[in-house]
Amino acid sequence: PQPPLLPPPPRPVQKAELVRLSQTLLHVRALHWVVVEDAAAPTALRGALHPPERRDPPRASPPPRGPPWLRPRGVEQRNRALQWLRETRAPGESGVVYFADDDNTYSLRLFEEHPWRGRLAGGAGGGPAFRAAAGGGGRVVGFHTAWKPERPFPLDMAGFAVGLPLLLARPAARFDPQAERGYLESSLLGGLVSPAELEPKADNCTQVLVWHTRTEKPKLRQEEQLQREGRGSDPHIEV
Amino acid sequence: PQPPLLPPPPRPVQKAELVRLSQTLLHVRALHWVVVEDAAAPTALRGALHPPERRDPPRASPPPRGPPWLRPRGVEQRNRALQWLRETRAPGESGVVYFADDDNTYSLRLFEEHPWRGRLAGGAGGGPAFRAAAGGGGRVVGFHTAWKPERPFPLDMAGFAVGLPLLLARPAARFDPQAERGYLESSLLGGLVSPAELEPKADNCTQVLVWHTRTEKPKLRQEEQLQREGRGSDPHIEV
Ligand SMILES: O=c1ccn([C@@H]2O[C@H](COP(=O)(O)OP(=O)(O)O)[C@@H](O)[C@H]2O)c(=O)[nH]1
Ligand SMILES: O=c1ccn([C@@H]2O[C@H](COP(=O)(O)OP(=O)(O)O)[C@@H](O)[C@H]2O)c(=O)[nH]1
Ligand SMILES: [Mn+2]
Ligand SMILES: [Mn+2]
Repeated sequence: PQPPLLPPPPRPVQKAELVRLSQTLLHVRALHWVVVEDAAAPTALRGALHPPERRDPPRASPPPRGPPWLRPRGVEQRNRALQWLRETRAPGESGVVYFADDDNTYSLRLFEEHPWRGRLAGGAGGGPAFRAAAGGGGRVVGFHTAWKPERPFPLDMAGFAVGLPLLLARPAARFDPQAERGYLESSLLGGLVSPAELEPKADNCTQVLVWHTRTEKPKLRQEEQLQREGRGSDPHIEV
Repeated sequence: PQPPLLPPPPRPVQKAELVRLSQTLLHVRALHWVVVEDAAAPTALRGALHPPERRDPPRASPPPRGPPWLRPRGVEQRNRALQWLRETRAPGESGVVYFADDDNTYSLRLFEEHPWRGRLAGGAGGGPAFRAAAGGGGRVVGFHTAWKPERPFPLDMAGFAVGLPLLLARPAARFDPQAERGYLESSLLGGLVSPAELEPKADNCTQVLVWHTRTEKPKLRQEEQLQREGRGSDPHIEV
């Protein structure tokens, strides 16, 4: 018997990225991975994850259309995850919240960072879009960035983590989908702390433990050609 | 004291890619990862690997210059690795040899594929450049490809593995650096088996277990701008 037709994955490399990221996260003890799908119904991609998920994850509606430099991606999903945490976690419950991109690269050393002192950490993000918070004397004293350095928190999404108790204690803090370009991180962080309250991590911000990698969009011209000839890939094979 | 200046990594995302791939391979038991550096001297990147390497890996000279579509990348390195295997392994020693790209995505399920019957396996490579070998009745009966289907082995480098005993028994088989575009895989495989001898893997070639992902080259304009202003990234921070 043929397997049922699978809904096509929303992006060609999405399964690959989830498989790759899940295999890194699989090393980490006591990690709870909240995957927010931007689809009205669950997609087939859950089978990609190691180990298979055990609970129904939250879902958000598809992101607003428009060029990505105008409409930051993943915002609704991240707010949906915040809402889920506030609905399901008890006040004061311990934990550290990261906001991960599926195409970023995370060193396992990131998860050895402790003790997380329960508030907010500005670690060294970086790599390609090298944007490290520079720490000094147990304080973050500046940021390394050329672009809009006047932002209150000129950090990439991958460059910080937030203590769960703080997130729960400030229930209104969220990402502003209308934030000006580059101000998305500031829109959340501004509702949580002042820049002076950031705690440097990653060996006083001298280690790069996350890279803002991006995966090339594949050209599917040949597959499209084969499909026009009626010789496309077997749709039962999940890619 | 300042740490010593690190030689700059050859490509901006190389450390990220090695970290990410190493964290997948770290799950695999009895795996020997041969990393061939295309540099005259060891680079700083070895520190990126989990766990740290324990022996001096082979090295190849930098690849010939020229546009990548004319000069396949990684050929010298792969031949150097073949040479290293033939120099260090005893005839008949068991094992399976994969040729991995540092930017590909490998599902852990790939490494559960067994028994490898000691010869050559045509699995389902694919993803973006979807190129699966189609198996039938325990034989590979065709290939799904639009590009140069007349090639004897129209497979991507990621779409097959070779039994170590076979590689040792055919000491002349190697990748031909002069091979016409698309014929690199055929140049090795033609020296090992006939297409009819391929063994389908990955559930009779119905599973995609490797994706030929590629990482975007980052734009470093802002970093270059900061460097011109004398405010570049701290060169002691390895990226
Ligand atoms: O249609 C989309 C596009 C992106 N994303 C998510 O939004 C985040 C940021 O997207 P992307 O990595 O493309 O942005 P970039 O890092 O290039 O700014 C990622 O975790 C994606 O999985 C999503 O959920 N739906
Ligand atoms: O200067 C280089 C460029 C590439 N490679 C290696 O050659 C392989 C193939 O390169 P790439 O992934 O860029 O090629 P593609 O997959 O895009 O054809 C990869 O494992 C790279 O690490 C290398 O050793 N030196
Ligand atoms: Mn991203
Ligand atoms: Mn590659």
